[in-house]
Amino acid sequence: MYPKEECGVFAIYGHVNSAELTYYGLYALQHRGQESAGIASFDPCQNHFQVCRGMGLVSQVFDSRSLASLQGTMAIGHVRYSTTGSSTLLNAQPIVVSCSKGELALAHNGNIVNAVSIRRELENKGSIFQTTSDSEVILHLMAQPAQEDIVGSFLNALQRVKGAFSCVLMTTKGIFAARDPLGFRPLCLGKIENSYVVSSETCAFDLIHAEYIRDIEPGEVLFIGEDGLKSYFINGQTTKKAFCIFEYVYFARPDSNIAGLNVSKARIQMGKELAKLYPVDADIVVPVPDSGNYAALGYAEQSGIPYYPAFVRNHYIGRTFIQPTQLIRDFSVRIKLNLIQEAIKGKRVIVVDDSIVRGTTARARVVNLREAGAKEVHIRVSCPPHRYPCHYGIDFPNPKSLLANQLAIEDICKYLGADSLGYLSHEALIKACLEANTEFCTACFTGKYPVDFDPDFDKMILERRSFFENVTK
Amino acid sequence: MYPKEECGVFAIYGHVNSAELTYYGLYALQHRGQESAGIASFDPCQNHFQVCRGMGLVSQVFDSRSLASLQGTMAIGHVRYSTTGSSTLLNAQPIVVSCSKGELALAHNGNIVNAVSIRRELENKGSIFQTTSDSEVILHLMAQPAQEDIVGSFLNALQRVKGAFSCVLMTTKGIFAARDPLGFRPLCLGKIENSYVVSSETCAFDLIHAEYIRDIEPGEVLFIGEDGLKSYFINGQTTKKAFCIFEYVYFARPDSNIAGLNVSKARIQMGKELAKLYPVDADIVVPVPDSGNYAALGYAEQSGIPYYPAFVRNHYIGRTFIQPTQLIRDFSVRIKLNLIQEAIKGKRVIVVDDSIVRGTTARARVVNLREAGAKEVHIRVSCPPHRYPCHYGIDFPNPKSLLANQLAIEDICKYLGADSLGYLSHEALIKACLEANTEFCTACFTGKYPVDFDPDFDKMILERRSFFENVTK
Amino acid sequence: MYPKEECGVFAIYGHVNSAELTYYGLYALQHRGQESAGIASFDPCQNHFQVCRGMGLVSQVFDSRSLASLQGTMAIGHVRYSTTGSSTLLNAQPIVVSCSKGELALAHNGNIVNAVSIRRELENKGSIFQTTSDSEVILHLMAQPAQEDIVGSFLNALQRVKGAFSCVLMTTKGIFAARDPLGFRPLCLGKIENSYVVSSETCAFDLIHAEYIRDIEPGEVLFIGEDGLKSYFINGQTTKKAFCIFEYVYFARPDSNIAGLNVSKARIQMGKELAKLYPVDADIVVPVPDSGNYAALGYAEQSGIPYYPAFVRNHYIGRTFIQPTQLIRDFSVRIKLNLIQEAIKGKRVIVVDDSIVRGTTARARVVNLREAGAKEVHIRVSCPPHRYPCHYGIDFPNPKSLLANQLAIEDICKYLGADSLGYLSHEALIKACLEANTEFCTACFTGKYPVDFDPDFDKMILERRSFFENVTK
Amino acid sequence: MYPKEECGVFAIYGHVNSAELTYYGLYALQHRGQESAGIASFDPCQNHFQVCRGMGLVSQVFDSRSLASLQGTMAIGHVRYSTTGSSTLLNAQPIVVSCSKGELALAHNGNIVNAVSIRRELENKGSIFQTTSDSEVILHLMAQPAQEDIVGSFLNALQRVKGAFSCVLMTTKGIFAARDPLGFRPLCLGKIENSYVVSSETCAFDLIHAEYIRDIEPGEVLFIGEDGLKSYFINGQTTKKAFCIFEYVYFARPDSNIAGLNVSKARIQMGKELAKLYPVDADIVVPVPDSGNYAALGYAEQSGIPYYPAFVRNHYIGRTFIQPTQLIRDFSVRIKLNLIQEAIKGKRVIVVDDSIVRGTTARARVVNLREAGAKEVHIRVSCPPHRYPCHYGIDFPNPKSLLANQLAIEDICKYLGADSLGYLSHEALIKACLEANTEFCTACFTGKYPVDFDPDFDKMILERRSFFENVTK
Repeated sequence: MYPKEECGVFAIYGHVNSAELTYYGLYALQHRGQESAGIASFDPCQNHFQVCRGMGLVSQVFDSRSLASLQGTMAIGHVRYSTTGSSTLLNAQPIVVSCSKGELALAHNGNIVNAVSIRRELENKGSIFQTTSDSEVILHLMAQPAQEDIVGSFLNALQRVKGAFSCVLMTTKGIFAARDPLGFRPLCLGKIENSYVVSSETCAFDLIHAEYIRDIEPGEVLFIGEDGLKSYFINGQTTKKAFCIFEYVYFARPDSNIAGLNVSKARIQMGKELAKLYPVDADIVVPVPDSGNYAALGYAEQSGIPYYPAFVRNHYIGRTFIQPTQLIRDFSVRIKLNLIQEAIKGKRVIVVDDSIVRGTTARARVVNLREAGAKEVHIRVSCPPHRYPCHYGIDFPNPKSLLANQLAIEDICKYLGADSLGYLSHEALIKACLEANTEFCTACFTGKYPVDFDPDFDKMILERRSFFENVTK
Repeated sequence: MYPKEECGVFAIYGHVNSAELTYYGLYALQHRGQESAGIASFDPCQNHFQVCRGMGLVSQVFDSRSLASLQGTMAIGHVRYSTTGSSTLLNAQPIVVSCSKGELALAHNGNIVNAVSIRRELENKGSIFQTTSDSEVILHLMAQPAQEDIVGSFLNALQRVKGAFSCVLMTTKGIFAARDPLGFRPLCLGKIENSYVVSSETCAFDLIHAEYIRDIEPGEVLFIGEDGLKSYFINGQTTKKAFCIFEYVYFARPDSNIAGLNVSKARIQMGKELAKLYPVDADIVVPVPDSGNYAALGYAEQSGIPYYPAFVRNHYIGRTFIQPTQLIRDFSVRIKLNLIQEAIKGKRVIVVDDSIVRGTTARARVVNLREAGAKEVHIRVSCPPHRYPCHYGIDFPNPKSLLANQLAIEDICKYLGADSLGYLSHEALIKACLEANTEFCTACFTGKYPVDFDPDFDKMILERRSFFENVTK
Repeated sequence: MYPKEECGVFAIYGHVNSAELTYYGLYALQHRGQESAGIASFDPCQNHFQVCRGMGLVSQVFDSRSLASLQGTMAIGHVRYSTTGSSTLLNAQPIVVSCSKGELALAHNGNIVNAVSIRRELENKGSIFQTTSDSEVILHLMAQPAQEDIVGSFLNALQRVKGAFSCVLMTTKGIFAARDPLGFRPLCLGKIENSYVVSSETCAFDLIHAEYIRDIEPGEVLFIGEDGLKSYFINGQTTKKAFCIFEYVYFARPDSNIAGLNVSKARIQMGKELAKLYPVDADIVVPVPDSGNYAALGYAEQSGIPYYPAFVRNHYIGRTFIQPTQLIRDFSVRIKLNLIQEAIKGKRVIVVDDSIVRGTTARARVVNLREAGAKEVHIRVSCPPHRYPCHYGIDFPNPKSLLANQLAIEDICKYLGADSLGYLSHEALIKACLEANTEFCTACFTGKYPVDFDPDFDKMILERRSFFENVTK
Repeated sequence: MYPKEECGVFAIYGHVNSAELTYYGLYALQHRGQESAGIASFDPCQNHFQVCRGMGLVSQVFDSRSLASLQGTMAIGHVRYSTTGSSTLLNAQPIVVSCSKGELALAHNGNIVNAVSIRRELENKGSIFQTTSDSEVILHLMAQPAQEDIVGSFLNALQRVKGAFSCVLMTTKGIFAARDPLGFRPLCLGKIENSYVVSSETCAFDLIHAEYIRDIEPGEVLFIGEDGLKSYFINGQTTKKAFCIFEYVYFARPDSNIAGLNVSKARIQMGKELAKLYPVDADIVVPVPDSGNYAALGYAEQSGIPYYPAFVRNHYIGRTFIQPTQLIRDFSVRIKLNLIQEAIKGKRVIVVDDSIVRGTTARARVVNLREAGAKEVHIRVSCPPHRYPCHYGIDFPNPKSLLANQLAIEDICKYLGADSLGYLSHEALIKACLEANTEFCTACFTGKYPVDFDPDFDKMILERRSFFENVTK
């Protein structure tokens, strides 16, 4: 079964420092995936693909020496977070292959919902699969002999796959940037000096001082080559769109702009809508950092109740942190965020968070607030209750672990131990994002999936249990 | 010459998990020193000191195995940042020695201003020095044969040294926690279950769920042993105090309480005072994260101008980040903090920071704001101009590099490219910290040093140029 | 172009400690490849392939944790040395894939001489290649839909590939051990408790206390499964054999037995033949350690001249050894082997080595001997002059770098600065290996290649220059 | 209690590449200590000591960057192996201190038998000890105010300490090389270009192409400075000598010359004497590699029985080797040395080793030989039975673990399972080393200790049990 993945992609064409700029681009996209990182570059003079991939943060995977080896005037990069138990180098991207279409390198963000059935079909035709990433099917489809040229084979492959994908493909002639017809995941085009750059988010352009040009359109396959830009569309230009609204709520960086709307601004507006829907008489508005910061600010502004960042974040939590042996209660919550008790004592507190998924952390936080002397605790959430899984690239837990899938709102409030609980309504969320020039996928709140997925998905998963796994050291 | 050091200390007596709790305590104190960390423990049953020290963050220095080896029912810990060019394991603390007073382990925060002359005197008597840390002189003084018992020798040693010190000393009988007579650096006492804990700041108590008891008093030498607590005073109890006000301004964590005043609260009050002193007609108040967050909030609250966290912090900057080869302008500023351009465009912006030292970063930040479209940029600083070096444990650069030591305020404003510039006044800073039950050292603003230091300091430094250095791998 | 590789393989079926035993097996085969190592295991209960691969020695790639994760009752392992400039994790084996025949894992030793043309054919059919290892073609051939079952598809694949291969293939049903029809590389079968083991050399059996059963026959494809052993033959049973005689001369470990002949014994006999062919009046016989040890012993025994190991090997040369900055002459020779000058001074010395390839080291060694006071230096080589490249898995340098390809014997002697030089003759070498129950490939001496390779090999190499490369950190 | 240590030292004065040459020197001395390594250098122009120390092999501790940082025209280096359970960076040398005599760096090989009592005396005077190495007392003694100049204070210190020491001391003026009055450990002087070098063994000179000048004499304190060499003697020149004969038997490298006798030659002579004393009718003489190689050769030569290196050494055993879980019998013996079974089968075998200490390994080896089919196994040992501990720097186990301390020779033979057993006699050993221009310490065979050690040693050890320990990560 294919793991669910969250990812970021970056690409640059026609720059002598292509690998170095890709490195900085990935750095700015690190929030989209912290498990593995990779860069592939190509030097037309040497006619040579090079790739460096590794487990860990961008700053851990690359060093001066590996960056220097990634020569060439074009490059693509990838950061990835996988939700399967075993994190593995095997699936680190870009995937680089040699096939009938020459050498190809692919970096992909999203989930292909019909990957398992395509894979079965391709295996029956003689293909062998070496990763457990759904992205691999795109390359196999391209490699099939039917299609003559690369453009045709890429368009054909993308017509076969269903689901969410924002991806960049490097060939020896140039770079493709493609987005699925509904535009689930972000992808945008920029320019630095005379070179085009592609990134999952605009924050990467800011870092390298590139100029934002435009978003890649849903269904667009943009080729960047010697002759500049050339646009293709997967199934002709479509009008229906389904951009993942959770990118605004949580996933994207606040300094990124998507579909013309700045993410931090959207979040402030969500907070304001929330204050209108669920006002309460209280003393302070406390954000859950960092995801709740802007919504809390919006709530405070709208309500006139003072904003107080009473949770202090520990910036030094590393991967290797040692869990205490049942020594300290609620440790895992406090280790990341410590309360300023002085600010809470005797106060009626509104806590604003971006979402509640399992509820475990939110519940422990209420205990913390009570211990610190909060008189009342009111929880406000800047999106509707999560009731359904995402099939398009955001990793929510199993529906049975989704609190709102199991309990009614008032029971959730009791479970969390809060005095009141308010979720942003679907309408208000859409309203908060009104300035975005797109329509939205809100399947995780509504269960209405814009793209069908195989109903036998679960059955196939069981059948495929044997799929090989890499043991990490 | 002795390096200037910033440090945090922690101690615990009488707990079976002493090393583990010290580990978490140091974790909460990590902001006080990120260069090296160490823990020494003692097991009365085994009569054995154990120590583990290393370069790096607490999470890097210790692992499950090393923590498990640090057995015993008492432990002390240390985190350290040194300002000398070569960071070296040699000076990582706790220092553990064997001498006429038995085995001793010391962890020390502060700067001893007469360390060089004491050292010279001790060398002439036959002592050999193996570190370049000023803390080592305390142990040498204790080791001198004149004094009979440990308490007497420790008190005697602390009467000889001048300057700032908050330190913990572990012997085979118990733990001492001592603070210099003026109380420059913080040090407080807490309790977890039936065990006493000592920490530089209260935030460490919060993490391990210990209860805060009281601050160690200036001049106090507290012994924690089999019979509970016993207090001594270095030169009898004194009345004059000189707590480093910069701990409130910048150094301490916002969730810590010192001398009865919460740090985040003090900072909000600084922001309010600043708004009273230097009001300006503007559209948004933008903090420089994270140090300017609370002061900006205070400024916004007092002025009624909206607060907007328009700088977005990159949480993934590692030590190994590769500097670009002159590729990208103002890169080092943007890599840490990226601006939300949408929030700035066309706005009159008030930027609030805790301090301006060299001015290089502040200047680059103004350039960023202008590029993002800010109409006006007004800088507000939540403390007076830094004009003098600190001799008591805060690492400011050479006075010649202190912007306010070289230029008049209006020239600083020009240099920074700002439309206006306002520093908090000395009086207003004191007023903002009025609730603190202490007097203050403000030498870095005023040049009035509460404890004399050797006027020939610089001469000695040159003379001692040869002092050995560890080469780090 | 495919890199030339030297490798060792190991496999075990039906043992609860299969991964652990494979680890020790690879340990004993480490001399066959020190660049990368890998183990794949399969647990029928869990229906799950697992694989751990890494760059470095067996002892570096695996730790207790990764070994513990490699659960299952069958496993295969691989050690590898590649001769291409960039050593890369990409090509570390076992290769694990999913295809129409289910999950497969392959570990391969040898060189497939028609890999490039098969690959081109497969790419044209739609296959994509993800490594630069020639072994990958075997799996692609198996994946092709024509064949019904695994046995048939494996036999079919092996009929298509030409060249040298000794390989083990793990399926969910059992393990195949296969050897090419001429039997270039060794492969043998053993038994530990009730489990069958397969190894490149018998020395791995000794380490794990397994009992040697027999060599896998040239052309044999042995399946080890639930029902014990079952033998197939690639093209029916053949009579012609071409075992690489250089395994006896240099590559195999002296404690291994191949085709019924112990390797150390073969080397002693080579030394004796050499003494018969090129006797000389001298004082001591000095081996070049460790490759020349046994031949020198044979020479000494035959000639009656005393054996003296006058070169002392430094056992602590690590990978990270820092080359001196032109400081010390002939350093790279002396750092590995230092002469006992006392033993050499005033003596007529016979130096016995297993082979001379480029001659650089041999020449520097003569200088060392002269400086140590040797009166005469006579070089004896225990195989014929290397004049031709190997296409079947031994990495000799480019023919232009082969000393014997460029110079006549007497000119080589002059070049080396020796007083005399004698190479073992082809006939004498064969005679020394007479007890081996096989025929030999001696192409590197004679240029008579038992299996054709594509004459356009070089052309293809140039054409394929672009083949992608992994950048190692 | 002080750990027993085995060490190697190196020094160079007056060379621009002093640290680099020290690095190579230590490389050649690596066999004398593999636990930690360190180099201290001094640059008169910069008046600055620098030191780099670390756990591990020379090739692991240093890299290009750390070597480049060790600037200066003089340097000393040290490799160390300690026998205490916890190996610790704390005790890595050179020790560098600052004291009344200025900066000093010391590297020391040997054991000071009165270190504990001197240390107690110094602690009572006010000294503090920061390592658990006996070498530290030398520096403390030098630091005492009584002596005026460095030469005097060093001579005085060396007159106080008793036992074995070969050490190098770096001051800002030059380098001292000193050897205890009985000359237990080797130390020699060489020259490279115009610079003097000092090394524990001559093999280091060979590597860096330095010329051997002479041994440092027992009791000599040689100063190398601006004016060349100047000799002092610790207690006037003495005549009695006590060079550790076990350096010839086992510890020193075979290519080193000590006191005019080459080590490999001494070992061959031991083998010949052994053959005269304990002849036996047999088929082959098999050395235990590498320590028994030369003695076995001598035995073979004297007896006329063929020499056969039937044990094959695995060169790839790293530190991280994973012990099998009771899976394989006698594993720890076979993993290092595998038998060539073909060479042993049906043979009467003479096994020659340099020494038998605990007997565990020797016993397992006999089992191996029997399993391989040896008809008879005769053990010959090239030194007398070890019955007493060494107090002067060789690490033998506790006397109770010494086989010969517990059993009579014939019982040892039974225990080992051998057909016969012969140890070289004391007289024959002395005879084999007759060419050495020295007298010998043979205390480990005879119990006659040339230098008294404190009879209360054990008592003190218990008392000092608490001495602190470093926890290694």
